[in-house]
This record gives sequence, structure tokens and C-alpha cells, in this order.
Amino acid sequence: MGEQFAAVRAATMALTQGLSSEDQCVQSMPDASPTKWHLAHTSWFFEVVILQASSTGYEAFNPDYLYLFNSYYEALGPRHPRPQRGLLTRPPLADIHAYREHVNRAMEHFIANADSATWHAAASVIELGLHHEQQHQELILTDILHLLSVNPLLPPYVPGPPPTATAHSPEPSAQWLTVQGGLQTMGHADDSFAFDNETPQHQALVHPFQISNRLVTCAEFMVFVTDGGYERADWWLSDGWAAVQAQQLRAPAYWLAPHDPRAPSSAWQIFGIHGVQPWNSAEPVTHVSFYEACAFAEWSGARLPTEFEWEAAFDAPAITQMLGPCWQWTRSSYEPYPGFRARSGAVREYNGKFMVGQQVLRGASHFTPAGHSRKTYRNFFPPATRWQVSGIRLARDIA
Amino acid sequence: MGEQFAAVRAATMALTQGLSSEDQCVQSMPDASPTKWHLAHTSWFFEVVILQASSTGYEAFNPDYLYLFNSYYEALGPRHPRPQRGLLTRPPLADIHAYREHVNRAMEHFIANADSATWHAAASVIELGLHHEQQHQELILTDILHLLSVNPLLPPYVPGPPPTATAHSPEPSAQWLTVQGGLQTMGHADDSFAFDNETPQHQALVHPFQISNRLVTCAEFMVFVTDGGYERADWWLSDGWAAVQAQQLRAPAYWLAPHDPRAPSSAWQIFGIHGVQPWNSAEPVTHVSFYEACAFAEWSGARLPTEFEWEAAFDAPAITQMLGPCWQWTRSSYEPYPGFRARSGAVREYNGKFMVGQQVLRGASHFTPAGHSRKTYRNFFPPATRWQVSGIRLARDIA
Amino acid sequence: MGEQFAAVRAATMALTQGLSSEDQCVQSMPDASPTKWHLAHTSWFFEVVILQASSTGYEAFNPDYLYLFNSYYEALGPRHPRPQRGLLTRPPLADIHAYREHVNRAMEHFIANADSATWHAAASVIELGLHHEQQHQELILTDILHLLSVNPLLPPYVPGPPPTATAHSPEPSAQWLTVQGGLQTMGHADDSFAFDNETPQHQALVHPFQISNRLVTCAEFMVFVTDGGYERADWWLSDGWAAVQAQQLRAPAYWLAPHDPRAPSSAWQIFGIHGVQPWNSAEPVTHVSFYEACAFAEWSGARLPTEFEWEAAFDAPAITQMLGPCWQWTRSSYEPYPGFRARSGAVREYNGKFMVGQQVLRGASHFTPAGHSRKTYRNFFPPATRWQVSGIRLARDIA
Amino acid sequence: MGEQFAAVRAATMALTQGLSSEDQCVQSMPDASPTKWHLAHTSWFFEVVILQASSTGYEAFNPDYLYLFNSYYEALGPRHPRPQRGLLTRPPLADIHAYREHVNRAMEHFIANADSATWHAAASVIELGLHHEQQHQELILTDILHLLSVNPLLPPYVPGPPPTATAHSPEPSAQWLTVQGGLQTMGHADDSFAFDNETPQHQALVHPFQISNRLVTCAEFMVFVTDGGYERADWWLSDGWAAVQAQQLRAPAYWLAPHDPRAPSSAWQIFGIHGVQPWNSAEPVTHVSFYEACAFAEWSGARLPTEFEWEAAFDAPAITQMLGPCWQWTRSSYEPYPGFRARSGAVREYNGKFMVGQQVLRGASHFTPAGHSRKTYRNFFPPATRWQVSGIRLARDIA
Repeated sequence: MGEQFAAVRAATMALTQGLSSEDQCVQSMPDASPTKWHLAHTSWFFEVVILQASSTGYEAFNPDYLYLFNSYYEALGPRHPRPQRGLLTRPPLADIHAYREHVNRAMEHFIANADSATWHAAASVIELGLHHEQQHQELILTDILHLLSVNPLLPPYVPGPPPTATAHSPEPSAQWLTVQGGLQTMGHADDSFAFDNETPQHQALVHPFQISNRLVTCAEFMVFVTDGGYERADWWLSDGWAAVQAQQLRAPAYWLAPHDPRAPSSAWQIFGIHGVQPWNSAEPVTHVSFYEACAFAEWSGARLPTEFEWEAAFDAPAITQMLGPCWQWTRSSYEPYPGFRARSGAVREYNGKFMVGQQVLRGASHFTPAGHSRKTYRNFFPPATRWQVSGIRLARDIA
Repeated sequence: MGEQFAAVRAATMALTQGLSSEDQCVQSMPDASPTKWHLAHTSWFFEVVILQASSTGYEAFNPDYLYLFNSYYEALGPRHPRPQRGLLTRPPLADIHAYREHVNRAMEHFIANADSATWHAAASVIELGLHHEQQHQELILTDILHLLSVNPLLPPYVPGPPPTATAHSPEPSAQWLTVQGGLQTMGHADDSFAFDNETPQHQALVHPFQISNRLVTCAEFMVFVTDGGYERADWWLSDGWAAVQAQQLRAPAYWLAPHDPRAPSSAWQIFGIHGVQPWNSAEPVTHVSFYEACAFAEWSGARLPTEFEWEAAFDAPAITQMLGPCWQWTRSSYEPYPGFRARSGAVREYNGKFMVGQQVLRGASHFTPAGHSRKTYRNFFPPATRWQVSGIRLARDIA
Repeated sequence: MGEQFAAVRAATMALTQGLSSEDQCVQSMPDASPTKWHLAHTSWFFEVVILQASSTGYEAFNPDYLYLFNSYYEALGPRHPRPQRGLLTRPPLADIHAYREHVNRAMEHFIANADSATWHAAASVIELGLHHEQQHQELILTDILHLLSVNPLLPPYVPGPPPTATAHSPEPSAQWLTVQGGLQTMGHADDSFAFDNETPQHQALVHPFQISNRLVTCAEFMVFVTDGGYERADWWLSDGWAAVQAQQLRAPAYWLAPHDPRAPSSAWQIFGIHGVQPWNSAEPVTHVSFYEACAFAEWSGARLPTEFEWEAAFDAPAITQMLGPCWQWTRSSYEPYPGFRARSGAVREYNGKFMVGQQVLRGASHFTPAGHSRKTYRNFFPPATRWQVSGIRLARDIA
Repeated sequence: MGEQFAAVRAATMALTQGLSSEDQCVQSMPDASPTKWHLAHTSWFFEVVILQASSTGYEAFNPDYLYLFNSYYEALGPRHPRPQRGLLTRPPLADIHAYREHVNRAMEHFIANADSATWHAAASVIELGLHHEQQHQELILTDILHLLSVNPLLPPYVPGPPPTATAHSPEPSAQWLTVQGGLQTMGHADDSFAFDNETPQHQALVHPFQISNRLVTCAEFMVFVTDGGYERADWWLSDGWAAVQAQQLRAPAYWLAPHDPRAPSSAWQIFGIHGVQPWNSAEPVTHVSFYEACAFAEWSGARLPTEFEWEAAFDAPAITQMLGPCWQWTRSSYEPYPGFRARSGAVREYNGKFMVGQQVLRGASHFTPAGHSRKTYRNFFPPATRWQVSGIRLARDIA
């Protein structure tokens, strides 16, 4: 466990290598958080739920941090309001680095010295803390990408061109795969780690359906755009059409139309971690909302899979792109599984309290840390979300 | 059909008997509509989807009305914005009465004279129109109740005291009923009327559960209130707790705390169609949001039933209050049934486009017209909704 | 005084003759009030400041009205929030008519029977009440015009065409009149009625200037429009340009561009109390904000007069259109005159508390009641106001 | 001029010594700007209005900066929206330092080498640029103070205690000084620098009045607070009372009530550049809005001076605190002087376009750079402003 702890903690820091302290301080919208806040909050988690709870003699790095870096755990005390995370120019980044080191040292000591009873109680919470930190690793990337995207200079997170291997690869041909369904086992059961929202494992009835062997590409989505996809209400959910009009949406987030003044070109381009790059027809479309995903599916004469269909299709022989390169919106709202019980103790608020107003995404993205994806993982975001790496896989009924 | 048409249309008008033209014109919030608008819109429905489409020689009452009284049918042309419905002091109520008469006469003529082919196409749409009008009958009541509730005088919709029979009845004792579940048939299939969202009939797996034989009462909810239900985050979904804080919620909508300046009393009171009345412990609690329903259930150590559990329990021997006196929030988001196909033609936007961001309510309320409720009916509203007649039935897992 | 009282009260009612109870109940924006509210509030004024204060044995018509129809007099008790005036479908219009009659009878009795000491105290307040009611007579017209303007049918307040005499009259030629200025007497002093904000009479130094003999016409303003007046920031105050962009302003309020879908025509039209009418080049431009007035002046190479220049020019021999047909924005913010003292007693909040954030308008409009205009009158509205009958008179420095 | 240029530019940099790059990047509210933006914008001014306009062969440091660091000069091209200034984590602070150096070098070269004709045109604009930079020096301080004030840690801008000399000095006794007024010369005329809004010099009639020899102290304002000053509408302008209620104001900005959780103490404290300090009764009250200033004056039985009264009293023998330590709200709206002409050319938008919706402040503050204050200086802010160093001087009429 000590090695794994060190590796995850180091991986978080590695993500910040190219970022200035300014980059790591600013909050670009209420839904996104500063990198510095992510660095601190993931340390706060270990400090509060392990060190303060179980480690004799542990001294908090700074009592103020208990307030500043709580995210949403009402039971763990008052907290700094989310939309104001970007106002915290103090403590400076260097202090947060010291805070991480302080927590790392104390955790190493705890892991090395806990007696058996203490360890028994703590081990699964530490494991949760590491998966929690991996979630924030992905958020660091999506949040910094958003911050750079609202800078008129559109600066890159990683300077230099992207690896050429992935560019302009030929578009794979799409196939409908038939899944017979029936009573299927869903969710997680064995001793390996999973979040509480993936449990309990249970049976679910899945009706026969077809699912695409791959994700929707940029080329396919462009046909929707040029066919007036954003100009006619027919294909949209009512809330989705309202969003199109209110925000004047015309394409996925981070697509730059020809002649965008920020990066003039006669062709479409796309903004990403390497900055502005040529639009690539064969890549999966990403940074679309659930509304856009549904509208595209409706226009295609198809629909999105439910999360149970997605899970039932996971082991289908010819299926590809299930654990990347992007999260895949499902037609399922985020709800408790039959018999769901939230984790107990300090982390009981981890997942269950968000089970309304959100859609489930399945899979993983190219931002998801290695080892953090699995068949039963349930990601969730509100349907209007576009700053996550979210794409589309189609399904349809069997006629 | 002619008789049924006349009866439904007359029932709508009967609801307006105690209302002045002022009462019928004003819009009290964007989600509610003026009575006059309901009167016109339900006529517009028949005019556009039957008379203009199928009735030779029909002349529109007033071409402006096609724009003014469209609700959300994008395919049927542009429409007056919902939040501005209350600005339409013209056309006056008398003109809307004349409009209803004009449409009634034309519909009577159509029903009496349509040839067999025309009738074949039109009959099911007329039936839909009548059920549509019944939905608006309930909305007339919920919307006028809201309007009167924001008047500091808290005037009654129906003057005089309520029928004494229902007041202060003894509270029935609550029982947990066990439902074994298994593969269950859900949704509507036979020739009788149902909305498209109740179809197709399909199998669903329901795990064994327990459900309360009756609704949660005001007395039970009061214990939650006095136990600090609105003061502690523990029991609330995250969005629900945010609503409590933003709107400073302290009790269900239309409950008046002791010493409310609008209707001074030393006891709790409740506002309803008869005006301010004594709070009645035995009555089902109503006008709670999905958030409040979930928080109450969590505090009770229980949960809400899914819509499938609710439907599976419908025929349980000892169960009561299933089709009234209030709608019952379920733990199910409003989603398409497996194999769902929206109705085709002019009314294709009727239901499907709202299938995101809403929770299903089952049952019926004391405002629901007779003949408009059934086991498979799926009502739906956003989770924050409080102006509908929405209450709580508890369920729980079998340990 | 009795005769005058009867005449003013009757004039208010006469304005409502063409309006339905629906028209009189709805509030079209927070700044405007329903006609019914104006009818009640002007009665409330007499009830509270005369009848309750000075008339022995007076019984309030309805104690609730003291709360419902107070406008902004904090000292006279709590009050119904302004933006919610349109929610008061109860009390119905008929009750407000009865309220007016009740107050009229009581006031007639008071005027006929007050003893000399009581009368001495009350007479000037009654006079104030009558001028207050005349102000609301103008607001009834501007507010109902706004309500009708947001109805897509653009219905007329007065059916039928306007009197032909004023239409298409030849445009008078504009002249610069030179005013020498110097130390000038400003404000009101004699025994005739004036509001407290017109006092005390005082000396002010006015530098020599030129002022136009007439108001800016629609034709002149149209040149500004077609010259890109609303498309270039150069001529606008910073706040004005922000308003142009935020509200996408393109012309004065109530101007209808060619091919407006609400009243199709190939020519410009204008909406007013007679409904949609041909745009008339010779009429003074009206329903412009202070921002539009300043931008037009800047574009013209001129400026607006200060309120002191306006008053100093009042008796210039060749000057026209000083007391109509529209109010005239001045370059003066609404501030207290040197030595200003607000009226004492119940009406002390009448004027002084609004002396920030508003611009002074001078003159009168075609909506101003006869006898309610004078040289020293100071009207005032926030600079963005467009629903008042506000126009432009130009001034300039002497080179 | 070269020496003065170097001194002003260096003074700006000196203000940033204690600030991290994080502190200098974040924007705490739309009205405030990041320090980094101030550093860049003041350089942009010289680059655009001097170097690009007049210096042959000057090469812009970075063409993007022309867009990023324009503030409100519509005529000088498009500009980055003000509320988004805090999103610019790139360019990093080091680049802005390089930008300043680049502009400094080019300006030094220009000052040393401009031919006589070029210099003649440029000298007064350079002088304007230096005064412009001094204005931003004050804004750097007020904006950073606001940023630190919204940090729950309430960190100091300058660590360590403030100089003891100013603390707890005895409160000077207040005296009414009589000023006879009459025709007075107002505004600026000689060859020394002044902004265009201080011109032309002109005569104004000032009526006899009395003015306080000193500013209102914290002790005096505390009496207003404890007398219910923020709880009763009587003393407030209508807009001011609305602000009190909407923002729940209870004391001047930066006052900390006893037991404030951010810095627990049983006594009042005050936040400033030295962090949280004891509340000092003898210091002038600062960080009050115009509304608070007017309410205090009304409660005191006095009023604010007009800007002309303030200027007429400037040389009164016994008057103190005229050019500090805080700006002094006047009862005058910010309007053009008679005969006002804006500067011509690139800087014509400097002052005139803000002449609506603002109140004039006179004097200077302890944040105002030495040499930047004078008798005729007209500062201006919207009446709700509290983050500037704004205080109160009383005046009154002569009975």
C-alpha cells in the first residue's frame, strides 16, 4: 500500500509540471476548481479521514485548511464556498506543496506503523482516498483545459505537437453489434476496489438491442452540424434546445470554426491539451453534452444505450473503445442500485447525495489515470456538461 | 365520442366559475400559466391537430391564436414565450370563451360528419386531445392555487369551509406490505387510452421490497420538521440542501407557521382551495418537492419506491391511497421505456422531449379529473417542484 | 377645493374607460404598475395622510389596503413589494371602485366640515394629494402603453385613428436661440402649488448658451439611426453603449422597423395609444432614454441643456414646445436645490429620497394632465428609462 | 521628463514587492482588476498612444497585448471583457515584467531622441500617461485590498504592525467653518497638469454654507451604527436602503464585528493593508458608500458638501484633512463643467464618457501617490462603491 500511495501522490504532482503558480490558482467557472485546490483537497481527504481519525499524535498542518479545502462533506464541518475557490491566492502554492509533503510523511509513517486493528479499519479508506485522488487527477486536466480555453491566446497545456501516431488515422468502419440481453449481472461484487455506487451487484433485465462497435467520430458529428443539427428543434430534448438557444451553441466545446479570430485558419480546428490543432475527422467526437449526444442519436435514427446495456455489451467480442478515449453518455439517470447502501462513517457523503439531476457516463477517457477504469465504473455529470471528455456511442432497438 | 367531448370541455369551464377575469389573466410564476391561457391552449390543440389538419373548410377563429396559444410544439410553428403568458390582457376572456365555442361547434360538426377514413385517422388524436385537456384541468387548479397563495390576502378559490367529512379523520395506522417482485409486466398495452410514455408494455425485474400501505401524513412530516429536518444537511440530496438554503425552506409549501402575519394564529395552518384552514394531522402531506420527499424518507430510515415498485404494488391487497389524494414522488427519473416510440405526426413532441431532468410521480391527486387516473400513468415534474399536489409514500428494502 | 377634488378624481377614472379589468390588473415590468394599483394607491394617499390623520371617526375601507397600496413610504408602515403589484387579482377592480367612492365620500365630508384649524393643516396636503394623483394619471397612460406594447397583438388603448390634425404636419425649421444667462432666479417661490423639489427659489449662474427653438424630430433621429448611430460606440456614454449592446437597441422604444412580424409593413411604423400608426417624420422623437438623447446630441455636435439652462430659456420669445408634447431630458442629475428641505410630516419621503441615480426632465408631455405643468417642474427618471414620453431638445456652447 | 517617467514606472513596480504571482493574477470582482493587468495596461497605454503613434520603427512587444490590455477605449480597437481579466494566467507575470521593460526602454529612447515637433505633440500625452499610471497605482492597492478581504484568512498586504504614530491619536474636536461663498472660480486653468474633466475653469455661484474642519471619525460613525443606523429607512436614500437590505449591510466595508469567525475577538476590528487591526476610534471612517455617507449625514442633521462647496472651502484657514487620508463623497453627480471639451485624439474617451451615474469624490487618500492630488481633482465612482478609500466630510446650510 505504501508504494501505491507514493505512486498516486507523485502522479498528481507530475500533472502540474508545466503549470505556473498562476495557472494553478485561478478558477475559470464555478464548476471547475483551481489545480492548487485539487492538490490541497486530496491531501485534506487523507488528513481528515485517516490522520485525524486514526493516527495518534498527528498534528494538523494548518487548522485553517480544514475549512478551506473541504469540498462538500457537510458532516466534516463548514466549508469554503465552491465558486470562491479561485480567490485563495493565499496560502501560496509553495505552502500547498509543503502541506502535501507533511501529509505524505504522516501517511507513510501511519502505513508503516499502524497496528493491526487500526490498519484493518483504515486500509479501505486509504484505498478510497487514492481512487478519490485519481478522480481529481482527471479533474485537474479537464479544469485546466477549460481555464486555458477561456484565455483568448488559447495556450497549450503541453507545448509542442501531439504524438503523430494518433493523428489522421483511418476511420474504422462502424458496425451494429447485437446483444441478446436477458437477466444480467450488474455492478461490482469481488474484493477489488469499487465505489459504493457500483454496488450491490444485482440482476437486471436487459432487452435485446444493438450497439455500435465504436464511438461516433468527429466526421460523423460534422455531418450533423452541417445538416443544421444546431438549427432545428426536432432532434433535441426540450432542455437541450433551450441550452442551444441560450448559449448559442453551434458545435462541440473546443471546436473552432473556420476564421475564429483567436486562431485564424480557413479550416475547422480543435483546442486541446496541445493547444490549437487541426480538426481530425477520425477521432471520436468529445466535449459534447448529454443533450448534444441525444440530439445526434435522434438525428441518426438511433439512441444512446442505457448504462445496463453498456455494461451488458462490455464483453462483446468485436466491441472497441469501451475504456477510452472518452467517457460515453448513457440514457440512464444516476440513481441508486437496488439495495444500495452508502459507505458509512466520514465518507458516507461520497456518492449517494448526488443521485439526482445527473446522467451516468460509462467507460473512461484519455485523461483517466491508468488503473482507474473498469467495466462497472459509474461516472456522472449534469446533462449540460461539456468540459468533461464526454463522447457518444450509439445503440438501437432490434426491430 | 361527441358526448365525451362535450363533457370534458364543459368540465374545464366549470372550474372557472368562481374566478374573475382578473384571476384568469395573471401569471404568478414562469412555471404556471393563466387560466385564460389554459382555456385557449386546450382549444388551440383541437383547432390545429384536428380541425386545420382534417376538417375541410374549417376557418381559424383568429390566425393570431396559432401563435399565442401554442405551448411547446416547435414543429407546429413559432410560439409566444411561456414566461410572458400573463401579459396577454388581450384577447379578453370573453373572446376566449367565444373561441372555445367556435372550436366546440366545429368539433361537433366534425365528429358528426367525418367520413370513415378521416375519422379513423382523427379519433385517437381527439381522444388524446381530451386527455390533454384533462391534464390542463389539473393545472388550472394548481396554477390558480399558486396565484392565490402569493396574494397577501390568501383568498380562497372556493369560498366557505371544506366538507367536514374529510377533516380530522383518525390517522390510519401504517403497515409495511411485502411485495415479492420478480419479472413483472409494466406499462400499458390494451386498446384503452394511454399516453405514449406508458408504452410499450414490457417486462421489468423488480427485487423484493416493502412499501407502506398509505401515504405519509402531515403529523409524520411535522415530526421531521420539529426534529430539525430543514436544519441539518445529513438527510438531504446535495441539490435539495442547496434549495433549502437558497429558498430558506422550513416546511412544505402552503403550510403557514404559527403567527404568520397573513393569517395570524397561534397554531399551524394550511392554505388550499378553501383558503386558510386548520392544519390537519391525519391528511397526507402535500406540496413537497422530490428533495423534501427524499429527505423525509432518509430521516425515516426508508426510501422512495421506484416507479416499477409502485406499479408492482398497485394491486397489493391492503394498499390504499394509490390513486389519490395526491401524486407520489418515485425514485425514478423520467426515462423512455425500453422500445419507446413517440407518437407520430403533429403530436410527436407530446412527451418524449421532456425525458431528462424530471422525476416520475405516480398515482393521482384530488385535483385529477375522474377517469384520468390509472395504474400505468406516468406524471413527471422537476425535482424542485412544490406547487403540484405531490406527496410521499415510503418503501424499503427487505433486510 | 371640493370641486377641484371631484374633477381630479373623475379624470383618473375617465382614463380607464376603454380598459378591461384584465388590462387594469396586469403588471408588465417591475417599473410599471397596474392601473388598478394606481386607482387604489391614489386613494390610499388621501386615506392615510388626510382621513386617518385628521378626520375624526373615519373608518378605513379595508385595513389590508394600508399594506397593499402603500408605494414607498417606509414611515407609513410595511408595504407590498413593487414587483408583485401585478399579482393582486384580489381585491377585484369593483372593490377598488368602491374604495375610491368610499374615500371620495369621506373626503367630501371632510372638505365640507373641517374646522378652521384642521383645514389649515390639511389643505396643502390635499392639494399635494391632487397633484400626486395627476402624476399617477400620467403613469396610468405610460404604464398601460407599455403593457399593450409587450402584447404581440399591439392593441390600441384608444381604438380608431388619431385626430388627423397632428399627422404629417410640416416640420418646423430649427433655430438656435441665444440666451445670455448670468445670475438667474431658479425654482418656485409664490403661493401657488409646487413640489418641494422645486424649492427653495435661489440664484444660479448660467453661462451664455444656445438652445434649439424646438424638439428633435423623428426625421432627424432617423438620420442618426441610418448613419449607424446604434452601431458605433463613439457617440455614447459608456453606460449607454453597454445598454445598446445588452438590449440590442436599434431605434427608440415603440418604433417598428419595416417588416416587423407583429404588424407587417414595408415602412417604419410607430406604436402608441392609437395602436400601430405610420411613422411621422415631423413629430418629436419620443421614448428615448437619456443615453440615446446624449448620443444623438453628441452625433449632432451639440449637447443637452442643463435644467438651469432650460429654465432660463423658458421665456425666450421664439422658443416652442416647452410644455409638450414630450418631456425633455436635461444634462442635470436630480439633486437637491441649495437649501432644500423636504416637506415635513407623513409626506416627507415624497421627493428627496430619490435624489441619486436619476436625470432631470423638464417640460411636460401629451400625457400630462392640464394644469399639471409649469416652468419650474422637475420630473426625474433613471437614465435608461424609455417607457416615459421623453424626447430631446438640443443646446450648445457659444463658441 | 525622463526622470519623472522612470520614477513613476518604478513606483508602480514597488507596490508589487510583497505580492506573489498568484496574488497578482486573480480578479476578486468585476469592478476590480488583477495587479498584473494594471502593470500591463499602464504599459499598453504608452505603447499605443505614444510608441505606435509617434515612435518610428517601434515594434510592439506582442500584438496580442493590444487586445488583452485595452481597458475601455472603443476607438483603439476591440478589447478583452473586464470581468474576464482574472482568467489571464498567460501571459505569465514574468512576461508582463519584460513587457514593462520593453516599453520603458522604448520610451526612454523616445524621450531622449524625439525631434522637437514630435515632442511637442507627445509631451502632454506622456504626462497624461504618467498621471494615468498613478491612478492605477491607487487602484492596485484598493483592488488587492479587496482580494485579500475575500480570503477567509484575511492576510495582510504589508506584514507586521502599522506604524504606531497614527494609531490611537486623540480625536480632534470638530468645528463648523463658515464659508461665505459668492461667485467663485472653479476648476483648473494654468499650465500644470490636470485632467480634462477639471476644465474649463469657470465661475460658479456658491451660497453661504458651513463645512466641518475635519472628517467624520470611526467613533462618530459607530454611534450611527449602534443607534440603528442600518436598521431604519428614515435616513437613507431609496437606492441606499435597497442596498442595505439586499446586501445586508451592517457597518462600513472591512469592519469586523466582535466574534467574526475569521478573526475572533470580543471587540470590533478593522481589516486593512496590515491585516486585521484594532478598530481605532479617532481615525476617519473609510470604505463607506455614497449611500452610507448620505445616511450618516442625514442622521447627523447635516448633509454632504457639493463639489463646489468643497473646492470653495479648500483654502479655509482652519480646515484639515482635505487631501487625505481619504476621498470625500460630495453631493454632486459627475457632470461636465460648463464649456467642457474632452481631450482630442486617442485619449478622447478618457473621462467624458463616464459622466452619468457616478458621484464626485474630492480630496485624496493615503493610497494616492504623492504629487497626484490637488484642489481641483475630480474623482468619481458609482454611489454603491465601498472598496475605494472613501469617507465623509459634513456640511450644512446657514440657518
